[in-house]
Amino acid sequence: MANTFGRLFRLTTWGESHGGGVGVVVDGCPPRLELTEADIQPDLDRRRPGQSKIVSSRKESDTVQILSGTFEGKTLGTPISLWVRNEDARPEAYSEMATKFRPSHADYTYQVKFGIRNWQGGGRTSARETIGRVAAGAIARKILRERYGVEVLACVQQVQRIMARIDPEAVKLKDIEANMVRCPDPVAAGKMIRLVEGARKAGDTVGGIVLGVARGVPPGWGEPVFDRLEADLAKAMLSLPASKGFDIGSGFDGILLTGTQHNDPFRARGGKVYTTANRSGGIQGGISNGQTIYFRVAFKPVATVMVEQETVDVNFRNATLKARGRHDPCVLPRAVPMVEAMTALVLMDHALRHKAQCE
Amino acid sequence: MANTFGRLFRLTTWGESHGGGVGVVVDGCPPRLELTEADIQPDLDRRRPGQSKIVSSRKESDTVQILSGTFEGKTLGTPISLWVRNEDARPEAYSEMATKFRPSHADYTYQVKFGIRNWQGGGRTSARETIGRVAAGAIARKILRERYGVEVLACVQQVQRIMARIDPEAVKLKDIEANMVRCPDPVAAGKMIRLVEGARKAGDTVGGIVLGVARGVPPGWGEPVFDRLEADLAKAMLSLPASKGFDIGSGFDGILLTGTQHNDPFRARGGKVYTTANRSGGIQGGISNGQTIYFRVAFKPVATVMVEQETVDVNFRNATLKARGRHDPCVLPRAVPMVEAMTALVLMDHALRHKAQCE
Amino acid sequence: MANTFGRLFRLTTWGESHGGGVGVVVDGCPPRLELTEADIQPDLDRRRPGQSKIVSSRKESDTVQILSGTFEGKTLGTPISLWVRNEDARPEAYSEMATKFRPSHADYTYQVKFGIRNWQGGGRTSARETIGRVAAGAIARKILRERYGVEVLACVQQVQRIMARIDPEAVKLKDIEANMVRCPDPVAAGKMIRLVEGARKAGDTVGGIVLGVARGVPPGWGEPVFDRLEADLAKAMLSLPASKGFDIGSGFDGILLTGTQHNDPFRARGGKVYTTANRSGGIQGGISNGQTIYFRVAFKPVATVMVEQETVDVNFRNATLKARGRHDPCVLPRAVPMVEAMTALVLMDHALRHKAQCE
Amino acid sequence: MANTFGRLFRLTTWGESHGGGVGVVVDGCPPRLELTEADIQPDLDRRRPGQSKIVSSRKESDTVQILSGTFEGKTLGTPISLWVRNEDARPEAYSEMATKFRPSHADYTYQVKFGIRNWQGGGRTSARETIGRVAAGAIARKILRERYGVEVLACVQQVQRIMARIDPEAVKLKDIEANMVRCPDPVAAGKMIRLVEGARKAGDTVGGIVLGVARGVPPGWGEPVFDRLEADLAKAMLSLPASKGFDIGSGFDGILLTGTQHNDPFRARGGKVYTTANRSGGIQGGISNGQTIYFRVAFKPVATVMVEQETVDVNFRNATLKARGRHDPCVLPRAVPMVEAMTALVLMDHALRHKAQCE
Repeated sequence: MANTFGRLFRLTTWGESHGGGVGVVVDGCPPRLELTEADIQPDLDRRRPGQSKIVSSRKESDTVQILSGTFEGKTLGTPISLWVRNEDARPEAYSEMATKFRPSHADYTYQVKFGIRNWQGGGRTSARETIGRVAAGAIARKILRERYGVEVLACVQQVQRIMARIDPEAVKLKDIEANMVRCPDPVAAGKMIRLVEGARKAGDTVGGIVLGVARGVPPGWGEPVFDRLEADLAKAMLSLPASKGFDIGSGFDGILLTGTQHNDPFRARGGKVYTTANRSGGIQGGISNGQTIYFRVAFKPVATVMVEQETVDVNFRNATLKARGRHDPCVLPRAVPMVEAMTALVLMDHALRHKAQCE
Repeated sequence: MANTFGRLFRLTTWGESHGGGVGVVVDGCPPRLELTEADIQPDLDRRRPGQSKIVSSRKESDTVQILSGTFEGKTLGTPISLWVRNEDARPEAYSEMATKFRPSHADYTYQVKFGIRNWQGGGRTSARETIGRVAAGAIARKILRERYGVEVLACVQQVQRIMARIDPEAVKLKDIEANMVRCPDPVAAGKMIRLVEGARKAGDTVGGIVLGVARGVPPGWGEPVFDRLEADLAKAMLSLPASKGFDIGSGFDGILLTGTQHNDPFRARGGKVYTTANRSGGIQGGISNGQTIYFRVAFKPVATVMVEQETVDVNFRNATLKARGRHDPCVLPRAVPMVEAMTALVLMDHALRHKAQCE
Repeated sequence: MANTFGRLFRLTTWGESHGGGVGVVVDGCPPRLELTEADIQPDLDRRRPGQSKIVSSRKESDTVQILSGTFEGKTLGTPISLWVRNEDARPEAYSEMATKFRPSHADYTYQVKFGIRNWQGGGRTSARETIGRVAAGAIARKILRERYGVEVLACVQQVQRIMARIDPEAVKLKDIEANMVRCPDPVAAGKMIRLVEGARKAGDTVGGIVLGVARGVPPGWGEPVFDRLEADLAKAMLSLPASKGFDIGSGFDGILLTGTQHNDPFRARGGKVYTTANRSGGIQGGISNGQTIYFRVAFKPVATVMVEQETVDVNFRNATLKARGRHDPCVLPRAVPMVEAMTALVLMDHALRHKAQCE
Repeated sequence: MANTFGRLFRLTTWGESHGGGVGVVVDGCPPRLELTEADIQPDLDRRRPGQSKIVSSRKESDTVQILSGTFEGKTLGTPISLWVRNEDARPEAYSEMATKFRPSHADYTYQVKFGIRNWQGGGRTSARETIGRVAAGAIARKILRERYGVEVLACVQQVQRIMARIDPEAVKLKDIEANMVRCPDPVAAGKMIRLVEGARKAGDTVGGIVLGVARGVPPGWGEPVFDRLEADLAKAMLSLPASKGFDIGSGFDGILLTGTQHNDPFRARGGKVYTTANRSGGIQGGISNGQTIYFRVAFKPVATVMVEQETVDVNFRNATLKARGRHDPCVLPRAVPMVEAMTALVLMDHALRHKAQCE
């Protein structure tokens, strides 16, 4: 049950790094939406390895195929099955992983949980699992854009200590895509790229922060109590590989203010309500208030480093391990489409939930 | 559907601030567990207002009653219905809320979502809703402690700029409960209390950070992909009123390290695997690794302040509002049992899920 | 998890025969619906024991109380908590049940499943559990009637060998309620009542068939594959105490026809499509086709008989048992509101599901 | 959401009759189970068309491929993705279906629900959808057999008026598979085959009853209230194409008995409890009692007949239609593996649920 996300717009991902491929089944998609592979492939291309010199060099075209759920270019309202074949399967590159657990990876925990694991390329723990999410997210983003006028974006805000200045209200896709690190602040982007290149040369990795943004969300999406919009976003983000933290609006910094400083005053103009500040991050009491939603996601430096590390083997004896798989010095540029996808999936689900109960 | 949490150990909360009371139905609790109101009341007492001079002065005894699911002091395996009557119902104190939206509260978003709201005491948005969570969490904590040897704790780590030093491996309940702010560092606690008292006098509020800890969780709990243990914890925490952020292990600070610095080396001793650092926060790939789980939750300064603020009325005209309800200058001491409860509920659910699939 | 029904219009029931009462939490109810206890009580009165000489003489007023989810007589969109106190608690009448399993009851299976059971009045297996269903169903029926023009009815079609002639298209509530057995065919009703009275005098019980009807369901409700409308109805009906079978439209009798005889021809008139026969029972491919939905539910003779029977005791030794609890010679008149409630709950859920995905 | 079944052992099916194929994702399967395509293919062979002269002549090898979830022949505990390519895609055979609705099919209801449909071969309404169920069911049956000693069987009990005598306690797979109609009573089988051949020659179809049996289910599986074992079985069976009814144990016939005649007396022998009759059908109060589970499923004569029928076209004008697709005169022999699969899926799910809460 761990492999399904969403209540009304639901996706179920499947697949290991090595095997028949990876895929996703999307259930609950509204009918009569125009949809072909061309709507999905661009986001997969932004997610795939090998797209630039600062990300993993694994060679995969990640070509998506729609197996069901559409007819003559339109959705049927039946499950949409999407499939991406595995290509760069090099089990030999991972042979040492058969006998040793990579530090800060999921090798050990999978072994202890399931008593078995596919050690080839990380198996199910591979970031290839996110292909299904990004593919499903592309569908959700399209519906949000076309039917609701909602724009979902993400970008890199910080790499290690290098911080960019980004205005959630104004940031544009073309500025994000203008450089390989997906940071819309060109000065910071240049520094970030040099930092990642240095890490790559050292066989090391760096982490940072991705900013997620949703503009144009109408007031009223989200739910009280457990399924607050920010709670579902937090879960979505913490379900991404290598993520370690989430905050929304003023977030961890908001605690430095007092209540009188922190509150967002309401104002009205022309029969419309807005706030003159947005420390709430567009959500109040779990429900969107019509302002821009923005949040941060912290990603740790990825665990696969090209230097020898202490670890244990599958017989629980001390050992050392030097990774030989593909080196991904900074997950952040590829995490951007993942954050967008998960954001769109959460919003799409809540759009349908709101419609069901309240419209 | 927003009012149910968990898959196998499930709770459904109900109730508004003013009305017949608040309650919770717990479904999926194992049978034959000894359980009476005395197992639940202490946590409710730690959550209730009026327990000290630095929290809300609302007068509620919050006495819990078990309506079903037990027989001769033991659980039956059937739904446990818990009920707490409302006592301090003073609708007149909230009459201005009938016509104006409190800034950074959920009044506006509820109104726009549902087209109706119970404005008395915040209705469903009142923190009284968390009574059901704390009551259910007390049951989960008892099972975790008695059947699995798992200890769940939380404490206040930071109030505004005052930070305490706390070791997740060593922190003890009695040190947490030694002062009214629930911070186990007595020096920091003293400063925090003075800060909160100052805020209270000013009619203002302060926020901060609660640290959550789970010790003794066996390796293997949690799931890959969407229902990662940290993802479910993130959702649980962001579903709490006034929470704005969550991070686990090294969290937002971990991004300052490189991969080689950040990885937790595995070591083995006596056939047991452990890590010599715990930047992972006890979870790897979504699954517990046997180390202590610890995470931070950011709570904003609560929105109800006793000073006049700009807002709009229900007719979407500009207005001002000065709150007259109970003033809660710092939610953190009362958030501690809420964080514990949600942590226990997530762990209990995953304990059962692990048992179902993998044992 | 066994105690929750529905996906979007969800109810969770709780409570044992003896204890604090029985209740239900309804989640997902649309806001702004007028709702007071007076909308619910009439259906509970039709369900309660003691309403006539042919049903159980247990004395319960079954007075419902709304604890949450409404404000000034309207639903809030938050969970509606409904509670009915237990009154006629006579544990002494059941003392022999503490040590012996009643044949064809759930005493033995509960004991073996949970290792514990509340033997007083059957505990959770008591038909009192259906109070929550009928209360929630009353809300669903009201919404179906007022917002969708859908009428849900049920009536007794057969008691043992006595069959009534009933036209699903024409049957009226007032004819159903015209007699204590709830059979709209007055001649058959008279025979049924005499049959039940004879059974009661003999300390025995009789079973039969309840016909369920839903008129005015628009075409398009229901879903392909697993959650077909008839599949959800079947589950709903087989979840009622004492039910043993379900069929829809031509049902078990339809197998005597060939395909050419069985198919329902489509015809069109004034831009509207209808069928000239309705062997489909109003559902095709899991989805309503706009014709009247009708189905049968078989109820066995209830297991509590006032004569000595062979059984075993809790130590798994052979024994005999003569029931001393309330005698309910025929469950059918009280099953009528249960069938109506479950039908309404299934339809309401699918109405919301259809709205979410397809409207 | 209509395309997922089960809570802990979950399957999600996808695919249309014409398109990339059909498939299923199985989530929640226990790890370390030996599993290859050879465990699944035999059940698919029993389900596929063209296997005998009395079923559909559509030519499909229905060869299953495992795309994920296993490693070196064993399950990983991750989602198992199974795929069967479509081969006999002849959209031209169905061209008239593009403009007319087949009577008693789902063409009209899909069109009205979704506003679009894949008319080629019935699209999602094709019986090909059941491939995913049978494949998933084969996995469940294997686990039930190997880990729990539970045997799941089904067979044809009645075709139109021809009834077989079958003892649920004794019926054997080899006797079921001894003839093409899958009826273990050889005399009745012969008559049934002749009847079906007659229907085939006439371009007509016949329906009947499949008997489902589960032997060796331990006492304690199932749940009180909504998810009773018989309720989940009823839903499972009514979700199969062409099914119209379900009853368990004494079922619809049980209503002819009185309570004293109908009750199953308990007896004990050697510390074990059993019943001397089994009118309960192996389930009491929604929970298995250790006796053999048996139930009936009514299947209507399939709607595709080779004779001209009245219908309407997509513009809602009266028309006539003579089907030109593959003729399947009797769905029953192919329904047998479907009933087995759904039975196994329900039992497997409840086995895990029981383990989670009660073991």
